[in-house]
Amino acid sequence: MGLLTKPIKTLDDLFVHQLQDIYYAEQQITKALPKMITKVADPELKQALENHLAETRKQIKRVEQVFQMHGEEVRATSCPAIDGIIEEANDVMGDASDPEVLDAAAIAAAQAVEHYEIARYGTLIAWARQLGRPDCANALEPTLQEEKAADLKLTEIAEAHVNRAAAVTGGSRR
Amino acid sequence: MGLLTKPIKTLDDLFVHQLQDIYYAEQQITKALPKMITKVADPELKQALENHLAETRKQIKRVEQVFQMHGEEVRATSCPAIDGIIEEANDVMGDASDPEVLDAAAIAAAQAVEHYEIARYGTLIAWARQLGRPDCANALEPTLQEEKAADLKLTEIAEAHVNRAAAVTGGSRR
Repeated sequence: MGLLTKPIKTLDDLFVHQLQDIYYAEQQITKALPKMITKVADPELKQALENHLAETRKQIKRVEQVFQMHGEEVRATSCPAIDGIIEEANDVMGDASDPEVLDAAAIAAAQAVEHYEIARYGTLIAWARQLGRPDCANALEPTLQEEKAADLKLTEIAEAHVNRAAAVTGGSRR
Repeated sequence: MGLLTKPIKTLDDLFVHQLQDIYYAEQQITKALPKMITKVADPELKQALENHLAETRKQIKRVEQVFQMHGEEVRATSCPAIDGIIEEANDVMGDASDPEVLDAAAIAAAQAVEHYEIARYGTLIAWARQLGRPDCANALEPTLQEEKAADLKLTEIAEAHVNRAAAVTGGSRR
């Protein structure tokens, strides 16, 4: 039965499982972000990650609210996907010796996290609507919009200065 | 030094590492997709996944081409992110006992994969441009567009019939 604690028989079971999965993922993200914030050098990037950490804490509250609205116990299930994404982020950032190159790696890592969340919240919202729970869908919609905005902000910071600084400092070829 | 075989000193090193990462990821996806295709029931979903498998094989060739254009040996590096995403997909799909619910789970899993690739190819293209390699960026651009189109196609299939079938068959509450 793999990682799951109960079999998935209905779309509702799948919805609850996905909610437990994102609940775990968000918690891992709140643990990973402070370390990332300490490591990055670019002030705008540092600020964007700090803002996103504050948003993530609000997003956890929203997931808890949806568990309650749905009459389900608030609980997390393991999520190998986010564990893998964070492990990869730590590895690449740990190996980047130049601060500007590390910033570029941090943006790439954060965008992989954002895209994971965009996929998961998009699915959760679609399933909630299908299950006749527009209230649960509406409670999660602001999170999806925040994830998309965070991803765009990171692209903006990368293209405005971080990628250029990384290319200049480290040189474009070894 | 974690998973990496050489330190990352420059943006170019980061670009090559990310290329090795996505090369591994695409190979894992070509192994995972056929199993997923066998398991799903919805004919339109099966066809979409088959089309995407054919696309993925072309995408691998494009990554190989970029390695060569960039004067780098074609090689893969381990990618815990895609391993985690696929592990989670196998777990959830393995636990879904109803065929319609399994189809909904398969779409969610495939969309998590698509979003991982959207993030990675978006980054690779931005870095290639920054490194003064528009040729490498242009070689990867069709892949990014295919990933985005595949994600939209999956949303379309989910909303057109798969999610409804999953809600009806399995019932909306246990």
